[in-house]
Amino acid sequence: MTTAIAPELSVSEWLNAAAPLTLAALRGRPVLLHAFQMLCPGCVSHGTPQTQRAHDMFKNTDLQVIGLHTVFEHHEAMKPVSLKAFVHENKLTFPIGVDTPGEDTPIPVTMASYGMRGTPTMILIRRNGTVYHHGFGQQDDMAVGAMIASVLTET
Amino acid sequence: MTTAIAPELSVSEWLNAAAPLTLAALRGRPVLLHAFQMLCPGCVSHGTPQTQRAHDMFKNTDLQVIGLHTVFEHHEAMKPVSLKAFVHENKLTFPIGVDTPGEDTPIPVTMASYGMRGTPTMILIRRNGTVYHHGFGQQDDMAVGAMIASVLTET
Amino acid sequence: MTTAIAPELSVSEWLNAAAPLTLAALRGRPVLLHAFQMLCPGCVSHGTPQTQRAHDMFKNTDLQVIGLHTVFEHHEAMKPVSLKAFVHENKLTFPIGVDTPGEDTPIPVTMASYGMRGTPTMILIRRNGTVYHHGFGQQDDMAVGAMIASVLTET
Amino acid sequence: MTTAIAPELSVSEWLNAAAPLTLAALRGRPVLLHAFQMLCPGCVSHGTPQTQRAHDMFKNTDLQVIGLHTVFEHHEAMKPVSLKAFVHENKLTFPIGVDTPGEDTPIPVTMASYGMRGTPTMILIRRNGTVYHHGFGQQDDMAVGAMIASVLTET
Repeated sequence: MTTAIAPELSVSEWLNAAAPLTLAALRGRPVLLHAFQMLCPGCVSHGTPQTQRAHDMFKNTDLQVIGLHTVFEHHEAMKPVSLKAFVHENKLTFPIGVDTPGEDTPIPVTMASYGMRGTPTMILIRRNGTVYHHGFGQQDDMAVGAMIASVLTET
Repeated sequence: MTTAIAPELSVSEWLNAAAPLTLAALRGRPVLLHAFQMLCPGCVSHGTPQTQRAHDMFKNTDLQVIGLHTVFEHHEAMKPVSLKAFVHENKLTFPIGVDTPGEDTPIPVTMASYGMRGTPTMILIRRNGTVYHHGFGQQDDMAVGAMIASVLTET
Repeated sequence: MTTAIAPELSVSEWLNAAAPLTLAALRGRPVLLHAFQMLCPGCVSHGTPQTQRAHDMFKNTDLQVIGLHTVFEHHEAMKPVSLKAFVHENKLTFPIGVDTPGEDTPIPVTMASYGMRGTPTMILIRRNGTVYHHGFGQQDDMAVGAMIASVLTET
Repeated sequence: MTTAIAPELSVSEWLNAAAPLTLAALRGRPVLLHAFQMLCPGCVSHGTPQTQRAHDMFKNTDLQVIGLHTVFEHHEAMKPVSLKAFVHENKLTFPIGVDTPGEDTPIPVTMASYGMRGTPTMILIRRNGTVYHHGFGQQDDMAVGAMIASVLTET
């Protein structure tokens, strides 16, 4: 179990959010972070719809669901204008941040600071700001439900 | 929220169990009860495999998963000899009790005492013996994971 | 490509049929034969519903769909009384024959005469009585549609 | 049954093709046309993978499978640079043409000439150049297999 505080998000643009979100401001609430790319098949078929379902299922709790568009390949193909159409067509309603592009690297800033291996990646952050779960690839629905309920019951 | 203690199980025969199980003896542990019929299509396609996955996922917790064969129709078709083959073929490993047949009614005893409306039915019982969830029909995996984690964290 | 005539069915009892069916009487029409066991998980989840869909989809053609209950294990668990409940619960409407039990062998007669390796098995018979396809295990829907259309266009 | 010849394709750019394809040059062969948009959820989850499977399944026949990127909304989001990444990520190997953008209308040229209602649309063209099937929305795998086999057997 890690006791390090999860790195702050670095986001260049927000969708579905009235104002920028920060982990610092969310301290005290659990955060479900879904890192994805709009052209990653495993994200589109599984991870992103799963995240939307978690957003809907736990809407009456203080869980904060956040999408993070971590583009690390095909950058020209997945610009914000394309992401916005993707979000519209897939009826995504949770806040989504565009991970800040890296300098001298195809890997965006937040993706690098978390050491993510690819997309989709699910990161679940405790109320105290530490990482409870960091999972790469398809996550099981039942396990996701259990993990979220667990961090919600932590004080 | 009900505060009544869940009715005791009435079981005529156990599979996958070294000895009979009772809710009384399990007091202090949460119990996931899956009421099914081996020829109920919704049980076979969804409820029973989901219960097996819950059994596997929470094996390192003190959750007790129990199947209950609540035959209320086609009694001649779903006798214990058929149930045993079903359990073998579907590789079910959690304890399964045969609900005691009713007298002068097609509804078996435990099914009646819980007021179940049909199969599959999922009943989740708290450590203190009260019912946390009584759901008829298909249950969502994420919700099931969340409910189990919630009762596990109760003291 | 085999030119041998497919063996005649040996059936001890029919469901969903006003009178016994024979391949001899069906000569001139293509026949889709689905060999299954009611407690075979792959049959219940895939093969049997697929067969029902083929029966529905080609109802306006002269394809004859036939189910064959080829019990080769757990014989006591899958007697006709259980099969009838299974057929009712799963809303199967195509004719289903109970493969005649073998003597001195757990393998029923038709299953043996076709050299079937297990269940589910799909056998597609041409208008001229020869076997067009003999497939063990899960069959792809698109391929099944194509094979049926092919034998329907043969003269 | 229509006897009109299917309108010629109007394509501004081809992917997965050594040279432009035309229906005129393909006369004598059946053609499966899959009209899609890369950000249409029903295309991504069902229609496009189904088309790839048809391409693979009938590769030893003279069926020609063609994708047509019929962008009629979110034009800025689905430019060819994005389509190319989509094709790469989803491992699509059949030829795909970009439907020529319309003048004074969001509807591209081929989409309009066929009177398509949206995406996905599947159009199956006979050897003689007439339309055998024009289907909007999700197409059933078994029916698709049957239709393709039927047009393949036509002379």
